[in-house]
Amino acid sequence: MDQAELKKLAAAEALKYVKSGMILGLGSGSTAAEFVKQLGAKIGLGDLENITGIPTSVATAELAESLGIKLATLDEHDKLDLAVDGADEVDPGLNMIKGLGRALLREKMTEIRAGKFIVIVDESKLVKKLGEKCPLPVEIVKFAHGATVRWFNTLPGCRAELWLEESGEPAVTDNGNFLAKCFFDGGMENPKEIAQMLDEMPGVVEHGLFLGMASKVIVAAEGGIQILGK
Amino acid sequence: MDQAELKKLAAAEALKYVKSGMILGLGSGSTAAEFVKQLGAKIGLGDLENITGIPTSVATAELAESLGIKLATLDEHDKLDLAVDGADEVDPGLNMIKGLGRALLREKMTEIRAGKFIVIVDESKLVKKLGEKCPLPVEIVKFAHGATVRWFNTLPGCRAELWLEESGEPAVTDNGNFLAKCFFDGGMENPKEIAQMLDEMPGVVEHGLFLGMASKVIVAAEGGIQILGK
Repeated sequence: MDQAELKKLAAAEALKYVKSGMILGLGSGSTAAEFVKQLGAKIGLGDLENITGIPTSVATAELAESLGIKLATLDEHDKLDLAVDGADEVDPGLNMIKGLGRALLREKMTEIRAGKFIVIVDESKLVKKLGEKCPLPVEIVKFAHGATVRWFNTLPGCRAELWLEESGEPAVTDNGNFLAKCFFDGGMENPKEIAQMLDEMPGVVEHGLFLGMASKVIVAAEGGIQILGK
Repeated sequence: MDQAELKKLAAAEALKYVKSGMILGLGSGSTAAEFVKQLGAKIGLGDLENITGIPTSVATAELAESLGIKLATLDEHDKLDLAVDGADEVDPGLNMIKGLGRALLREKMTEIRAGKFIVIVDESKLVKKLGEKCPLPVEIVKFAHGATVRWFNTLPGCRAELWLEESGEPAVTDNGNFLAKCFFDGGMENPKEIAQMLDEMPGVVEHGLFLGMASKVIVAAEGGIQILGK
């Protein structure tokens, strides 16, 4: 099976947790998109009724709408029954790096309000230490972004750069902010400490460390589905 | 003496700490504006030379420029020698509420990088508990701002509302974000706890609690100047 097939498998497993009548956080990125597609198909077949989707990005909203999924905004719902999303890295404690799809702020705002948060990944996303395979994305305000990125370089083990498009222009989020990529060679020694330093730093809008948030992680591998968490 | 005269007095005292050659954070609001005016006058007289100002708002930048103060950006200077700014409230531990002038994010980004941070207030700003006299301003992202404001209402002792202009439109910061006002009747029991909860909450860009940041607070009162801190 290739990675695309593994993503479909994980999405199908997550779909088993969706019940009619749910308010449902819809993640962003390629694995979450697979879930949204399968959800749309099930609604189309009449197997699920009265589902309200809360999208975590403009792209996800567009995809869900094209599939006929009824959408609402986070502003209208403080509590979600379930959220389903992918992740860039998952460690053995189910802590995650998310946001390389650029939607980390809306994802975190949505998923923190979900009664249950199910993460779907293929096995390539499992790591021993966060930051082992991918950089940590951080959404930052445009004002003095150079100073903010230089400050990231003073964090323990961190090498940071402004996230640039291929054109050389800074990447801009749905919220009009810039992004930085923070590289931790060999992975982060203490993600909780890094998260706290980023939380406290003015100029940081939000970061891609999702610690203690996942209820379950569904991992699709060659050998089948593995479910981590309670 | 009226309040305007007290502000002038406090600003004049702060000016004594400015030396030629300094990189200087310039605060926002009416008391800080008084400092900027007196600074401009002293530079004009040749009493201070080679001062570089780092403004904390568009309004302060315009004022400083009109006075011939040489400006630079925070992006160009990671370390400032000194920052001078007003505050909305100061408690006995020199913790502060700032930001009712709407510039809290740029102020905090600037003042956290200052070797010394001198705060200038008239005596009406001194309180036993932060929040006693004024609301805490919080800068928030536009996305799902209703959900964010409702969450503020779940904080211990907090009653929150979106900051509206007289027109009824939401107030917008220099950074394109909205603001909320968080009221704590009788003041905050534990500002550090509130700050931490706000720091960790996605959707909060920055809050107006400036804890442990002031080096000195210059208080202008009828009876003269009082200096708090080392």
